[in-house]
Amino acid sequence: MRILGIDPGSHVTGYGLIEKQGNYLRNVIDGEIKPRKNLLLSATLIYIYSQLSVLIRETKPEAIAVENIFYGKNVRSLIKQAQVRGLVIFTGADQGIPVFEYSPLEVKKAVVGYGRAEKRQVQMMVKAILKLPGLPPADAADALATAICHANFLKEQPI
Amino acid sequence: MRILGIDPGSHVTGYGLIEKQGNYLRNVIDGEIKPRKNLLLSATLIYIYSQLSVLIRETKPEAIAVENIFYGKNVRSLIKQAQVRGLVIFTGADQGIPVFEYSPLEVKKAVVGYGRAEKRQVQMMVKAILKLPGLPPADAADALATAICHANFLKEQPI
Repeated sequence: MRILGIDPGSHVTGYGLIEKQGNYLRNVIDGEIKPRKNLLLSATLIYIYSQLSVLIRETKPEAIAVENIFYGKNVRSLIKQAQVRGLVIFTGADQGIPVFEYSPLEVKKAVVGYGRAEKRQVQMMVKAILKLPGLPPADAADALATAICHANFLKEQPI
Repeated sequence: MRILGIDPGSHVTGYGLIEKQGNYLRNVIDGEIKPRKNLLLSATLIYIYSQLSVLIRETKPEAIAVENIFYGKNVRSLIKQAQVRGLVIFTGADQGIPVFEYSPLEVKKAVVGYGRAEKRQVQMMVKAILKLPGLPPADAADALATAICHANFLKEQPI
């Protein structure tokens, strides 16, 4: 089963596709979508949509996993992230892929074992679980962690 | 000039298209997109996208106007609204229409004359300005008010 994790953000949208074969998890592809910084919001959204829809069409995931938005942020960045998140969920769903969501707590528990893990610990555990040659960049690691979380829990109810 | 105002929301997305001819503003079409309440978020987004993209394709607005998100709301509904707003901005921009934003204060000032106006006052002023036969529904009125605001101010910088 192929699971695409996505970590939406207006500056960086991380993604990571893994394949689950029995209990074995394999990394297929991961990366970060980074719109140019001086783009208008509208152009940023179009850029993220176009990159992501090609990725989904090419890699054919059977499920997409995204994190809930973490409420602790300031309202301004929370709105920015939610705007991208809405588009990301649409992009997947519009290609017929079910989208599942997990809380940051669930994701960290799934990869590190406890919910208060630091970003760096997430990167290291993702590297270990998927036997990557090096540390993945932070937002790609978050996306891979979300995909790993879904591989373990396999929630039945999409959003 | 044709201006489409949109008031994004996960339960109701209001829209209102007006035409500006000199100083005269005319209502072309307005209404509310209401996804069924028991839909998944993904299906809600697909529904809003499909309704809105047909509306834009058919009515060919030259500009789209949306309100900023009002920070006073609770975080949960703010995230929901921002998710739809991101998709709405994408939908317009993806068809090549420039999208402009105005604060709730600017919109109320533009139609009622002061920024603390009630919803009902906005409905009544929109009815008066556009010489409508009756009060438009609240979310359609908000969308029309945003379009009227853009017709008056014509900001140059899209988002």
